[in-house]
Order: sequence, then structure tokens, then C-alpha cells
Amino acid sequence: MQTTVNVSGMTCGHCVMSVTEELTELDGVESVDVDLVAGGVSPVVVTASRELTPEEIAAAVEEAGYSVA
Amino acid sequence: MQTTVNVSGMTCGHCVMSVTEELTELDGVESVDVDLVAGGVSPVVVTASRELTPEEIAAAVEEAGYSVA
Repeated sequence: MQTTVNVSGMTCGHCVMSVTEELTELDGVESVDVDLVAGGVSPVVVTASRELTPEEIAAAVEEAGYSVA
Repeated sequence: MQTTVNVSGMTCGHCVMSVTEELTELDGVESVDVDLVAGGVSPVVVTASRELTPEEIAAAVEEAGYSVA
């Protein structure tokens, strides 16, 4: 199933990589798709084999150094 | 001795890290100091035990994915 979150603060491909890496580490995550809006709010689609909670997604995003808008 | 170059295209700390890493790999480089101007032109001061050529600095910056302005 897919969950979409809005992530703020990413500015470049390195930022996208950091967020993607942290989200991919969550149990059951199959893919992460980031539509970078540099310096703005970027939609991030997480596909997983189970339902992810908003809390665990936000924690992973924050671990990467960004925040859920 | 110190050489200052202007690097364009860096947007965040990850970009600074990439440029710093590539420049640090040059022979004789002792330190790299980046004053990030996100999305603009950032002065980068390279301190080395020998004189660096503009060509080798530019090559390292380009290796990191950015360009000397």
C-alpha cells in the first residue's frame, strides 16, 4: 500500500537520498519516490507491504534531518 | 598556501561535504573551508602545502558535481 507525506527542507539530490535511505530502512518498505521541490514542500510516496503509521514515517524523515510538513 | 575559488550550484550541507571530500583528496591539501551560499556562488578556501593549479581545483569541484564560477 502507498502512503504520501509532504517533506520540507530538502534542497538537492543528496537530501532526497538521505530521506530515501531512512524510509527504506523501515520494515516492509518496498520503494520510496520523492518529487523534489527544492527548498519547498516535496511529496514523498512510500510503498510498503504493510500499513505505515504517520509516526514512524515522521521519525524516519526527522532522522534524515528534515520534517514532515 | 591558500587558494580561493567560487563554486556554484551547492544548496546544502551534503553538497558542501561532497566538494570538501573531492578537494581534500588532492595531493597536499590540508583543509577546505566552504562558506555556503545556498543556490548561489560560494567561496571555497583551500589550504595546501603546495601551489594548486586552477585546473586541478576545477576538476575536483566538477567531480563532486558542481562548477567553478
